[in-house]
Amino acid sequence: MMAIGRTHWAIPEGFIPSESLPGAGRSLLSHEAACILNAGDVDAHIAITIYFVDHVPVGPYRVVVPAQRTLRLRFNELDDPEPVPRDTDYASLIVSDVPIVVQHTRLDSRQAQFALLSTMAFAG
Amino acid sequence: MMAIGRTHWAIPEGFIPSESLPGAGRSLLSHEAACILNAGDVDAHIAITIYFVDHVPVGPYRVVVPAQRTLRLRFNELDDPEPVPRDTDYASLIVSDVPIVVQHTRLDSRQAQFALLSTMAFAG
Amino acid sequence: MMAIGRTHWAIPEGFIPSESLPGAGRSLLSHEAACILNAGDVDAHIAITIYFVDHVPVGPYRVVVPAQRTLRLRFNELDDPEPVPRDTDYASLIVSDVPIVVQHTRLDSRQAQFALLSTMAFAG
Amino acid sequence: MMAIGRTHWAIPEGFIPSESLPGAGRSLLSHEAACILNAGDVDAHIAITIYFVDHVPVGPYRVVVPAQRTLRLRFNELDDPEPVPRDTDYASLIVSDVPIVVQHTRLDSRQAQFALLSTMAFAG
Repeated sequence: MMAIGRTHWAIPEGFIPSESLPGAGRSLLSHEAACILNAGDVDAHIAITIYFVDHVPVGPYRVVVPAQRTLRLRFNELDDPEPVPRDTDYASLIVSDVPIVVQHTRLDSRQAQFALLSTMAFAG
Repeated sequence: MMAIGRTHWAIPEGFIPSESLPGAGRSLLSHEAACILNAGDVDAHIAITIYFVDHVPVGPYRVVVPAQRTLRLRFNELDDPEPVPRDTDYASLIVSDVPIVVQHTRLDSRQAQFALLSTMAFAG
Repeated sequence: MMAIGRTHWAIPEGFIPSESLPGAGRSLLSHEAACILNAGDVDAHIAITIYFVDHVPVGPYRVVVPAQRTLRLRFNELDDPEPVPRDTDYASLIVSDVPIVVQHTRLDSRQAQFALLSTMAFAG
Repeated sequence: MMAIGRTHWAIPEGFIPSESLPGAGRSLLSHEAACILNAGDVDAHIAITIYFVDHVPVGPYRVVVPAQRTLRLRFNELDDPEPVPRDTDYASLIVSDVPIVVQHTRLDSRQAQFALLSTMAFAG
Protein backbone atom coordinates (compact mmCIF):
# COMPACT_ATOMS: atom_id res chain seq x y z
CA MET A 1 0.00 0.00 0.00
CA MET A 2 1.07 3.50 -0.87
CA ALA A 3 1.32 6.41 1.57
CA ILE A 4 1.70 9.30 -0.85
CA GLY A 5 1.57 12.89 0.29
CA ARG A 6 2.44 15.20 3.15
CA THR A 7 1.06 15.98 6.58
CA HIS A 8 0.75 19.80 6.36
CA TRP A 9 -1.27 21.60 3.70
CA ALA A 10 -2.39 25.19 3.19
CA ILE A 11 -5.10 26.81 1.03
CA PRO A 12 -4.79 30.62 1.11
CA GLU A 13 -7.89 31.23 -1.03
CA GLY A 14 -11.29 30.69 0.57
CA PHE A 15 -14.67 32.25 -0.16
CA ILE A 16 -18.11 30.68 0.05
CA PRO A 17 -20.74 32.65 -1.88
CA SER A 18 -24.01 32.93 0.02
CA GLU A 19 -25.94 32.80 -3.22
CA SER A 20 -26.54 29.95 -5.62
CA LEU A 21 -28.56 29.32 -8.70
CA PRO A 22 -32.22 29.21 -7.63
CA GLY A 23 -33.35 25.61 -7.27
CA ALA A 24 -29.79 24.24 -7.39
CA GLY A 25 -29.44 20.79 -5.87
CA ARG A 26 -26.41 19.91 -3.70
CA SER A 27 -24.13 19.31 -6.68
CA LEU A 28 -24.69 22.79 -8.19
CA LEU A 29 -24.88 24.68 -4.90
CA SER A 30 -22.06 27.22 -4.54
CA HIS A 31 -19.47 25.39 -2.48
CA GLU A 32 -15.80 25.12 -1.68
CA ALA A 33 -14.11 21.79 -1.02
CA ALA A 34 -10.85 20.32 0.17
CA CYS A 35 -10.57 17.04 -1.72
CA ILE A 36 -8.47 14.70 0.42
CA LEU A 37 -6.86 11.41 -0.61
CA ASN A 38 -5.58 9.02 2.03
CA ALA A 39 -3.92 6.30 -0.03
CA GLY A 40 -2.14 4.80 2.98
CA ASP A 41 -3.16 1.86 5.14
CA VAL A 42 -3.78 3.86 8.33
CA ASP A 43 -6.72 6.22 9.01
CA ALA A 44 -5.86 9.93 8.79
CA HIS A 45 -6.89 12.13 11.71
CA ILE A 46 -7.07 15.66 10.39
CA ALA A 47 -7.31 19.06 12.12
CA ILE A 48 -8.31 22.14 10.11
CA THR A 49 -7.76 25.73 11.22
CA ILE A 50 -9.56 28.59 9.47
CA TYR A 51 -7.79 31.97 9.22
CA PHE A 52 -9.46 35.34 8.67
CA VAL A 53 -8.54 38.85 7.60
CA ASP A 54 -9.42 40.63 10.81
CA HIS A 55 -9.92 38.22 13.72
CA VAL A 56 -8.34 35.21 15.39
CA PRO A 57 -8.33 31.79 13.73
CA VAL A 58 -11.13 29.30 14.40
CA GLY A 59 -10.60 25.59 14.96
CA PRO A 60 -9.68 22.90 15.04
CA TYR A 61 -12.30 21.30 12.86
CA ARG A 62 -11.69 17.55 13.03
CA VAL A 63 -12.31 14.94 10.34
CA VAL A 64 -11.15 11.38 9.76
CA VAL A 65 -10.35 10.03 6.32
CA PRO A 66 -10.19 6.24 6.55
CA ALA A 67 -7.29 4.28 5.10
CA GLN A 68 -7.51 3.97 1.31
CA ARG A 69 -10.44 6.34 1.03
CA THR A 70 -11.07 9.85 -0.30
CA LEU A 71 -13.17 12.64 1.21
CA ARG A 72 -14.74 15.69 -0.42
CA LEU A 73 -14.76 18.04 2.55
CA ARG A 74 -17.09 20.97 1.90
CA PHE A 75 -16.12 23.96 3.97
CA ASN A 76 -19.73 25.15 3.83
CA GLU A 77 -20.80 22.01 5.69
CA LEU A 78 -18.36 22.42 8.60
CA ASP A 79 -20.16 23.47 11.78
CA ASP A 80 -18.07 22.40 14.79
CA PRO A 81 -16.81 24.53 16.49
CA GLU A 82 -18.83 26.95 14.28
CA PRO A 83 -19.94 27.40 10.64
CA VAL A 84 -17.54 29.04 8.19
CA PRO A 85 -19.03 32.47 7.40
CA ARG A 86 -20.36 33.17 3.90
CA ASP A 87 -19.18 35.99 1.62
CA THR A 88 -16.04 36.26 3.74
CA ASP A 89 -12.38 35.80 2.79
CA TYR A 90 -10.69 32.98 4.69
CA ALA A 91 -7.73 30.62 4.41
CA SER A 92 -7.20 27.15 5.80
CA LEU A 93 -4.43 25.02 7.27
CA ILE A 94 -4.90 21.25 7.18
CA VAL A 95 -2.75 19.03 9.41
CA SER A 96 -2.89 15.22 9.34
CA ASP A 97 -1.15 12.58 11.43
CA VAL A 98 -0.30 10.56 8.29
CA PRO A 99 0.50 11.61 4.72
CA ILE A 100 -2.45 12.80 2.62
CA VAL A 101 -2.91 14.77 -0.61
CA VAL A 102 -5.19 17.84 -0.74
CA GLN A 103 -6.75 19.61 -3.73
CA HIS A 104 -8.85 22.78 -3.51
CA THR A 105 -11.98 23.22 -5.66
CA ARG A 106 -14.74 25.81 -5.81
CA LEU A 107 -18.01 25.76 -7.73
CA ASP A 108 -19.49 29.24 -7.86
CA SER A 109 -23.11 29.29 -9.03
CA ARG A 110 -24.02 32.85 -8.17
CA GLN A 111 -24.74 33.31 -11.84
CA ALA A 112 -26.89 31.21 -14.15
CA GLN A 113 -23.80 29.53 -15.62
CA PHE A 114 -21.50 28.29 -12.85
CA ALA A 115 -17.73 28.74 -12.82
CA LEU A 116 -15.07 26.33 -11.50
CA LEU A 117 -11.59 26.68 -10.09
CA SER A 118 -9.18 24.08 -8.76
CA THR A 119 -5.58 23.81 -7.64
CA MET A 120 -3.44 21.46 -5.67
CA ALA A 121 -3.05 22.82 -2.14
CA PHE A 122 0.42 23.86 -0.90
CA ALA A 123 2.33 21.05 0.79
CA GLY A 124 4.36 22.39 3.68
CA MET B 1 16.38 13.10 -24.64
CA MET B 2 14.80 14.43 -21.51
CA ALA B 3 13.19 12.33 -18.77
CA ILE B 4 11.37 15.03 -16.81
CA GLY B 5 8.94 14.20 -14.05
CA ARG B 6 8.23 11.72 -11.30
CA THR B 7 6.89 8.18 -11.03
CA HIS B 8 4.09 8.70 -8.46
CA TRP B 9 1.22 11.15 -8.90
CA ALA B 10 -2.05 11.79 -7.08
CA ILE B 11 -5.27 13.62 -8.03
CA PRO B 12 -7.59 13.92 -5.01
CA GLU B 13 -10.42 15.59 -6.95
CA GLY B 14 -12.48 13.42 -9.27
CA PHE B 15 -16.06 13.72 -10.47
CA ILE B 16 -17.54 12.82 -13.84
CA PRO B 17 -20.93 14.47 -14.43
CA SER B 18 -23.42 12.09 -16.04
CA GLU B 19 -24.95 14.96 -17.96
CA SER B 20 -23.65 16.98 -20.87
CA LEU B 21 -24.91 19.62 -23.20
CA PRO B 22 -27.47 17.95 -25.49
CA GLY B 23 -25.87 17.11 -28.81
CA ALA B 24 -22.33 17.68 -27.52
CA GLY B 25 -19.65 15.95 -29.56
CA ARG B 26 -16.71 14.23 -27.87
CA SER B 27 -14.79 17.47 -27.33
CA LEU B 28 -17.63 19.15 -25.39
CA LEU B 29 -18.82 16.06 -23.54
CA SER B 30 -18.42 16.39 -19.77
CA HIS B 31 -15.16 14.63 -19.06
CA GLU B 32 -12.21 14.41 -16.74
CA ALA B 33 -8.69 13.74 -17.96
CA ALA B 34 -5.23 12.97 -16.72
CA CYS B 35 -2.93 14.58 -19.29
CA ILE B 36 0.31 12.62 -19.27
CA LEU B 37 3.65 13.61 -20.81
CA ASN B 38 6.36 11.00 -21.27
CA ALA B 39 9.29 13.05 -22.55
CA GLY B 40 11.79 10.26 -21.97
CA ASP B 41 13.15 7.72 -24.42
CA VAL B 42 11.53 4.64 -22.81
CA ASP B 43 7.83 3.70 -22.88
CA ALA B 44 5.97 4.39 -19.62
CA HIS B 45 3.90 1.53 -18.16
CA ILE B 46 1.33 3.12 -15.91
CA ALA B 47 -1.01 1.67 -13.27
CA ILE B 48 -3.95 3.75 -11.99
CA THR B 49 -5.88 3.07 -8.81
CA ILE B 50 -9.24 4.75 -8.17
CA TYR B 51 -10.22 5.58 -4.56
CA PHE B 52 -13.73 6.15 -3.26
CA VAL B 53 -15.47 7.66 -0.25
CA ASP B 54 -17.10 4.51 1.02
CA HIS B 55 -15.70 1.37 -0.57
CA VAL B 56 -12.41 -0.29 -1.46
CA PRO B 57 -10.22 1.04 -4.27
CA VAL B 58 -10.56 -0.29 -7.81
CA GLY B 59 -7.65 -1.07 -10.09
CA PRO B 60 -5.17 -1.23 -11.48
CA TYR B 61 -6.18 0.33 -14.74
CA ARG B 62 -3.20 -0.05 -17.08
CA VAL B 63 -2.08 2.25 -19.87
CA VAL B 64 1.14 2.71 -21.84
CA VAL B 65 2.42 6.10 -22.91
CA PRO B 66 5.10 5.56 -25.55
CA ALA B 67 8.47 7.29 -25.35
CA GLN B 68 8.28 10.96 -26.38
CA ARG B 69 4.52 10.97 -26.60
CA THR B 70 1.60 12.47 -24.66
CA LEU B 71 -1.73 10.89 -23.72
CA ARG B 72 -5.04 12.52 -22.77
CA LEU B 73 -6.44 9.78 -20.55
CA ARG B 74 -10.17 10.32 -20.03
CA PHE B 75 -11.33 8.69 -16.82
CA ASN B 76 -14.80 8.36 -18.34
CA GLU B 77 -13.38 6.07 -21.03
CA LEU B 78 -11.66 3.64 -18.62
CA ASP B 79 -13.51 0.32 -18.46
CA ASP B 80 -11.07 -2.40 -17.37
CA PRO B 81 -11.46 -3.68 -14.66
CA GLU B 82 -14.71 -1.62 -14.60
CA PRO B 83 -16.05 1.83 -15.62
CA VAL B 84 -15.53 4.77 -13.28
CA PRO B 85 -18.97 5.61 -11.85
CA ARG B 86 -20.64 8.90 -12.80
CA ASP B 87 -21.80 11.58 -10.36
CA THR B 88 -19.52 10.02 -7.74
CA ASP B 89 -16.56 11.52 -5.85
CA TYR B 90 -13.32 9.66 -6.50
CA ALA B 91 -9.56 10.20 -6.35
CA SER B 92 -6.75 8.62 -8.33
CA LEU B 93 -3.19 7.43 -7.83
CA ILE B 94 -1.02 7.12 -10.93
CA VAL B 95 2.19 5.07 -10.79
CA SER B 96 4.64 4.79 -13.69
CA ASP B 97 7.83 2.77 -14.14
CA VAL B 98 9.61 5.82 -15.61
CA PRO B 99 9.29 9.57 -14.92
CA ILE B 100 6.18 11.26 -16.35
CA VAL B 101 4.32 14.53 -15.75
CA VAL B 102 0.57 14.55 -15.00
CA GLN B 103 -1.96 17.39 -15.23
CA HIS B 104 -5.63 17.12 -14.24
CA THR B 105 -8.36 18.76 -16.33
CA ARG B 106 -12.15 18.70 -16.25
CA LEU B 107 -14.65 20.06 -18.74
CA ASP B 108 -18.09 20.25 -17.19
CA SER B 109 -20.87 20.80 -19.71
CA ARG B 110 -23.87 20.15 -17.53
CA GLN B 111 -24.95 23.67 -18.29
CA ALA B 112 -25.27 25.41 -21.64
CA GLN B 113 -21.95 27.21 -21.11
CA PHE B 114 -19.25 24.77 -20.05
CA ALA B 115 -16.75 25.36 -17.24
CA LEU B 116 -13.10 24.28 -17.06
CA LEU B 117 -10.66 23.50 -14.28
CA SER B 118 -7.06 22.34 -14.40
CA THR B 119 -4.15 21.80 -12.05
CA MET B 120 -0.86 20.01 -12.03
CA ALA B 121 -1.28 16.70 -10.18
CA PHE B 122 0.67 16.14 -6.93
CA ALA B 123 4.08 14.53 -7.47
CA GLY B 124 4.85 12.12 -4.65
CA MET C 1 1.84 28.02 16.10
CA MET C 2 2.64 26.95 12.62
CA ALA C 3 4.88 28.83 10.19
CA ILE C 4 4.05 27.06 6.93
CA GLY C 5 5.28 28.31 3.58
CA ARG C 6 8.16 30.02 1.89
CA THR C 7 9.51 33.55 1.63
CA HIS C 8 9.74 33.92 -2.19
CA TRP C 9 6.80 33.47 -4.54
CA ALA C 10 6.22 34.16 -8.23
CA ILE C 11 3.07 34.52 -10.36
CA PRO C 12 3.97 34.71 -14.07
CA GLU C 13 0.36 35.26 -15.24
CA GLY C 14 -1.18 38.65 -14.64
CA PHE C 15 -3.91 40.53 -16.50
CA ILE C 16 -6.57 42.86 -15.13
CA PRO C 17 -9.46 43.38 -17.57
CA SER C 18 -10.58 46.99 -17.71
CA GLU C 19 -14.16 45.88 -18.28
CA SER C 20 -16.63 44.27 -15.92
CA LEU C 21 -20.25 43.29 -15.97
CA PRO C 22 -22.28 46.54 -15.89
CA GLY C 23 -23.45 47.23 -12.35
CA ALA C 24 -21.12 44.64 -10.80
CA GLY C 25 -20.41 45.22 -7.12
CA ARG C 26 -16.92 44.73 -5.72
CA SER C 27 -17.26 40.93 -5.50
CA LEU C 28 -18.09 40.51 -9.21
CA LEU C 29 -15.78 43.23 -10.51
CA SER C 30 -13.05 41.83 -12.77
CA HIS C 31 -10.09 41.43 -10.46
CA GLU C 32 -6.90 39.56 -9.82
CA ALA C 33 -5.74 38.62 -6.33
CA ALA C 34 -2.79 37.19 -4.47
CA CYS C 35 -4.35 35.32 -1.56
CA ILE C 36 -1.78 35.28 1.22
CA LEU C 37 -1.78 33.15 4.38
CA ASN C 38 0.51 34.02 7.25
CA ALA C 39 -0.06 31.15 9.69
CA GLY C 40 2.98 32.04 11.79
CA ASP C 41 3.18 34.06 14.98
CA VAL C 42 5.11 37.01 13.53
CA ASP C 43 3.77 39.67 11.15
CA ALA C 44 4.86 39.27 7.53
CA HIS C 45 6.36 42.30 5.80
CA ILE C 46 5.93 41.78 2.10
CA ALA C 47 7.42 43.51 -0.96
CA ILE C 48 5.88 42.97 -4.40
CA THR C 49 7.58 43.73 -7.69
CA ILE C 50 5.58 43.91 -10.93
CA TYR C 51 7.27 42.83 -14.19
CA PHE C 52 6.21 43.83 -17.69
CA VAL C 53 6.77 42.73 -21.28
CA ASP C 54 8.49 45.85 -22.52
CA HIS C 55 9.63 48.11 -19.70
CA VAL C 56 11.41 48.02 -16.35
CA PRO C 57 9.78 46.50 -13.26
CA VAL C 58 7.76 48.64 -10.87
CA GLY C 59 7.92 48.38 -7.09
CA PRO C 60 8.20 47.58 -4.38
CA TYR C 61 4.58 47.59 -3.34
CA ARG C 62 4.53 46.97 0.41
CA VAL C 63 1.90 45.19 2.47
CA VAL C 64 1.81 43.66 5.94
CA VAL C 65 -0.06 40.47 6.72
CA PRO C 66 -0.39 40.21 10.49
CA ALA C 67 0.48 37.01 12.36
CA GLN C 68 -2.22 34.35 11.99
CA ARG C 69 -4.18 36.31 9.42
CA THR C 70 -4.94 36.07 5.72
CA LEU C 71 -5.06 38.83 3.10
CA ARG C 72 -6.80 38.97 -0.26
CA LEU C 73 -4.49 41.37 -2.07
CA ARG C 74 -6.18 42.70 -5.18
CA PHE C 75 -3.62 43.83 -7.73
CA ASN C 76 -6.21 46.23 -9.15
CA GLU C 77 -6.27 48.07 -5.80
CA LEU C 78 -2.50 48.61 -5.56
CA ASP C 79 -1.58 52.24 -6.17
CA ASP C 80 1.76 52.97 -4.47
CA PRO C 81 4.16 53.57 -6.20
CA GLU C 82 1.60 53.50 -9.06
CA PRO C 83 -1.53 51.61 -10.21
CA VAL C 84 -1.10 48.33 -12.09
CA PRO C 85 -2.16 49.04 -15.68
CA ARG C 86 -5.31 47.41 -17.07
CA ASP C 87 -5.48 45.20 -20.15
CA THR C 88 -1.73 44.69 -19.86
CA ASP C 89 0.28 41.49 -19.34
CA TYR C 90 2.31 41.52 -16.15
CA ALA C 91 3.93 39.12 -13.69
CA SER C 92 4.70 39.48 -10.00
CA LEU C 93 7.35 38.53 -7.48
CA ILE C 94 6.34 38.45 -3.83
CA VAL C 95 9.02 38.46 -1.12
CA SER C 96 8.27 38.15 2.60
CA ASP C 97 10.49 38.29 5.65
CA VAL C 98 8.75 35.24 7.16
CA PRO C 99 7.17 32.14 5.55
CA ILE C 100 3.80 32.69 3.84
CA VAL C 101 1.68 30.80 1.31
CA VAL C 102 0.40 32.51 -1.85
CA GLN C 103 -2.42 31.51 -4.22
CA HIS C 104 -3.33 33.36 -7.42
CA THR C 105 -6.97 33.90 -8.41
CA ARG C 106 -8.70 35.88 -11.15
CA LEU C 107 -12.36 36.64 -11.63
CA ASP C 108 -12.99 37.84 -15.17
CA SER C 109 -16.43 39.41 -15.64
CA ARG C 110 -15.96 40.96 -19.06
CA GLN C 111 -18.82 38.77 -20.18
CA ALA C 112 -22.26 38.33 -18.65
CA GLN C 113 -21.20 35.03 -17.05
CA PHE C 114 -17.90 35.40 -15.22
CA ALA C 115 -15.01 32.95 -15.43
CA LEU C 116 -12.57 31.94 -12.68
CA LEU C 117 -9.02 30.66 -12.57
CA SER C 118 -6.79 29.82 -9.62
CA THR C 119 -3.44 28.20 -8.95
CA MET C 120 -0.95 28.03 -6.15
CA ALA C 121 1.88 30.48 -6.86
CA PHE C 122 5.41 29.16 -7.46
CA ALA C 123 7.48 28.89 -4.27
CA GLY C 124 11.09 29.78 -4.98
CA MET D 1 18.28 41.10 -8.54
CA MET D 2 16.40 37.90 -8.03
CA ALA D 3 16.77 34.76 -10.16
CA ILE D 4 13.73 32.78 -9.03
CA GLY D 5 12.65 29.59 -10.76
CA ARG D 6 13.95 26.56 -12.56
CA THR D 7 15.35 25.76 -16.00
CA HIS D 8 13.08 22.82 -17.00
CA TRP D 9 9.28 23.03 -17.14
CA ALA D 10 6.57 20.76 -18.50
CA ILE D 11 2.90 21.34 -19.42
CA PRO D 12 1.17 18.02 -20.20
CA GLU D 13 -2.16 19.62 -21.16
CA GLY D 14 -2.37 21.40 -24.47
CA PHE D 15 -5.30 22.03 -26.81
CA ILE D 16 -5.99 25.02 -29.03
CA PRO D 17 -9.64 25.20 -30.13
CA SER D 18 -10.00 26.16 -33.79
CA GLU D 19 -13.16 28.05 -33.01
CA SER D 20 -13.72 31.30 -31.17
CA LEU D 21 -16.57 33.61 -30.45
CA PRO D 22 -17.49 35.30 -33.77
CA GLY D 23 -15.95 38.74 -33.90
CA ALA D 24 -13.63 38.10 -30.95
CA GLY D 25 -10.62 40.39 -30.83
CA ARG D 26 -7.19 39.06 -29.87
CA SER D 27 -7.91 39.10 -26.14
CA LEU D 28 -11.02 36.90 -26.42
CA LEU D 29 -9.73 34.62 -29.17
CA SER D 30 -9.42 31.02 -28.01
CA HIS D 31 -5.77 30.68 -27.04
CA GLU D 32 -3.29 28.85 -24.88
CA ALA D 33 -0.33 30.56 -23.28
CA ALA D 34 2.83 29.83 -21.37
CA CYS D 35 3.30 32.85 -19.12
CA ILE D 36 7.01 33.19 -18.44
CA LEU D 37 8.73 35.33 -15.82
CA ASN D 38 12.44 36.00 -16.04
CA ALA D 39 13.16 37.91 -12.82
CA GLY D 40 16.92 37.50 -13.16
CA ASP D 41 19.47 39.90 -14.57
CA VAL D 42 20.43 37.78 -17.60
CA ASP D 43 18.31 37.18 -20.73
CA ALA D 44 16.69 33.73 -20.89
CA HIS D 45 17.16 31.72 -24.08
CA ILE D 46 14.33 29.23 -24.21
CA ALA D 47 13.73 26.13 -26.35
CA ILE D 48 10.24 24.59 -26.51
CA THR D 49 9.47 21.09 -27.73
CA ILE D 50 5.89 20.06 -28.57
CA TYR D 51 4.84 16.44 -27.99
CA PHE D 52 1.93 14.65 -29.64
CA VAL D 53 -0.17 11.54 -29.15
CA ASP D 54 0.80 9.74 -32.32
CA HIS D 55 3.85 11.24 -33.98
CA VAL D 56 7.33 12.51 -33.21
CA PRO D 57 7.90 15.75 -31.27
CA VAL D 58 8.33 19.07 -33.10
CA GLY D 59 10.84 21.70 -32.15
CA PRO D 60 12.72 23.45 -30.89
CA TYR D 61 10.71 26.64 -30.95
CA ARG D 62 13.03 29.37 -29.70
CA VAL D 63 12.15 32.50 -27.76
CA VAL D 64 14.10 34.99 -25.66
CA VAL D 65 12.71 36.56 -22.51
CA PRO D 66 14.89 39.53 -21.61
CA ALA D 67 16.24 40.02 -18.10
CA GLN D 68 13.58 41.33 -15.71
CA ARG D 69 10.76 40.92 -18.20
CA THR D 70 7.73 38.69 -18.65
CA LEU D 71 6.39 37.08 -21.82
CA ARG D 72 2.92 35.79 -22.62
CA LEU D 73 3.83 33.12 -25.17
CA ARG D 74 0.75 32.07 -27.12
CA PHE D 75 1.18 28.57 -28.53
CA ASN D 76 -1.27 29.48 -31.30
CA GLU D 77 1.16 32.15 -32.52
CA LEU D 78 4.20 29.85 -32.79
CA ASP D 79 5.07 29.12 -36.41
CA ASP D 80 8.76 28.20 -36.63
CA PRO D 81 9.49 25.35 -37.35
CA GLU D 82 5.72 24.95 -37.93
CA PRO D 83 2.36 26.04 -36.47
CA VAL D 84 0.92 24.08 -33.55
CA PRO D 85 -2.11 22.20 -34.94
CA ARG D 86 -5.61 23.15 -33.76
CA ASP D 87 -8.09 20.80 -32.13
CA THR D 88 -5.22 18.46 -31.34
CA ASP D 89 -3.91 17.20 -27.98
CA TYR D 90 -0.31 18.20 -27.34
CA ALA D 91 2.11 18.71 -24.46
CA SER D 92 5.13 20.96 -24.12
CA LEU D 93 8.59 20.93 -22.58
CA ILE D 94 10.22 24.31 -21.94
CA VAL D 95 13.97 24.50 -21.32
CA SER D 96 15.80 27.72 -20.43
CA ASP D 97 19.47 28.50 -19.92
CA VAL D 98 18.66 30.50 -16.75
CA PRO D 99 15.95 30.12 -14.08
CA ILE D 100 12.44 31.15 -15.11
CA VAL D 101 8.91 30.54 -13.82
CA VAL D 102 6.17 29.22 -16.12
CA GLN D 103 2.38 29.27 -15.71
CA HIS D 104 -0.09 27.70 -18.15
CA THR D 105 -3.34 29.45 -19.08
CA ARG D 106 -6.10 28.76 -21.61
CA LEU D 107 -9.00 30.93 -22.67
CA ASP D 108 -11.60 28.86 -24.50
CA SER D 109 -14.18 30.94 -26.34
CA ARG D 110 -15.82 28.24 -28.42
CA GLN D 111 -19.03 29.14 -26.65
CA ALA D 112 -20.65 32.54 -26.16
CA GLN D 113 -19.35 32.72 -22.57
CA PHE D 114 -15.64 31.90 -22.42
CA ALA D 115 -14.03 29.58 -19.87
CA LEU D 116 -10.59 29.89 -18.24
CA LEU D 117 -8.10 27.48 -16.74
CA SER D 118 -4.66 28.08 -15.27
CA THR D 119 -2.00 26.19 -13.35
CA MET D 120 1.63 26.56 -12.52
CA ALA D 121 3.65 24.35 -14.91
CA PHE D 122 5.67 21.44 -13.49
CA ALA D 123 9.23 22.37 -12.54
CA GLY D 124 11.58 19.51 -13.33
